[in-house]
Amino acid sequence: MKELIQKIKSIIQLSDDAEEYLYSISSVKSYSKDSILLLEGQRVKKIFFIIDGCLRSYCTDKKGKEHTLQFGIKDWWISDYIAIHTDQHAKLTIKCLQDSKVIEFDSEKLNSIFSIFPEFEPFQRFLLERHVVSLHRRILNQLQLTAAERYDIFLDQYPDIEQFTRNYHIASYLGITQESLSRIRAEKST
Amino acid sequence: MKELIQKIKSIIQLSDDAEEYLYSISSVKSYSKDSILLLEGQRVKKIFFIIDGCLRSYCTDKKGKEHTLQFGIKDWWISDYIAIHTDQHAKLTIKCLQDSKVIEFDSEKLNSIFSIFPEFEPFQRFLLERHVVSLHRRILNQLQLTAAERYDIFLDQYPDIEQFTRNYHIASYLGITQESLSRIRAEKST
Repeated sequence: MKELIQKIKSIIQLSDDAEEYLYSISSVKSYSKDSILLLEGQRVKKIFFIIDGCLRSYCTDKKGKEHTLQFGIKDWWISDYIAIHTDQHAKLTIKCLQDSKVIEFDSEKLNSIFSIFPEFEPFQRFLLERHVVSLHRRILNQLQLTAAERYDIFLDQYPDIEQFTRNYHIASYLGITQESLSRIRAEKST
Repeated sequence: MKELIQKIKSIIQLSDDAEEYLYSISSVKSYSKDSILLLEGQRVKKIFFIIDGCLRSYCTDKKGKEHTLQFGIKDWWISDYIAIHTDQHAKLTIKCLQDSKVIEFDSEKLNSIFSIFPEFEPFQRFLLERHVVSLHRRILNQLQLTAAERYDIFLDQYPDIEQFTRNYHIASYLGITQESLSRIRAEKST
């Protein structure tokens, strides 16, 4: 938690009271591989900051096929933001791809921080702007790059992830079939 | 501009000084169809709020093919957020698909509003959260829905847009070929 507080302090001035509030609405938890932190259909009560490990958020279509929205690694935030901001039940499941350590924040109480400690707003703006940029990039890459080019960008972004992901995790993030991913990998290794 | 001020006031309390500041950093402009509001390679100096009309933001790949990131209609904001938040030159071009009326904001001065009038922060948070939700939805739809299902959602979202868009605008937003779009349309009309 100290490390996250330092990150926040590198962006905004955080009062002792606000820091205390952040501690009071969070707890550090360790989860083993394959633990489920959020299940599709549940109310979303938590937002997770990843201290260590790797998580995956995904939805499941009518045919039972999984589609990966996000991989969450060290220093990333993860939750079901559609559900939180539209006050719906989760459409996503969040699962640990390896043993992971997270800080769990009560999402309602985290949302209250802006009225209690408005000084926190610029930090949230920083996070949201960064998130919008990464989502715009992902959409543009999906539209204009080949699957092989997107796979290269993916490996740059998550250099160690292949150790603990299965083929369909990555294929379903890139929006390609597992066969296409195998072909791309085979071509890269020649 | 009055209408936008009303929208802002429905979300936050806006002081007279902040309202005056918003007027001072903006101007209402009318553009005819095909006008270019931002060109790839330029510095991004403006953020546009659309009063009326329709705009399209797109990038052009090495082969000269255009890929549509966004259609902007009444009450939407549009700019090149990757360029603004990473301090780079524009990767996007923004062009009017029909005669359009916009409020142009100086992007640096709009960004200064948060230090001068912190009361504006919750409005920006509201916009950014809404934007993140729509981008998450778009990525999930792209991953899990068929092109025909995505086209139906597109028509719900932009009911009148087909009057002033070309086939390749829509196809390049959905990430499909023009031939696929024609086939989907033909199947819908039978």
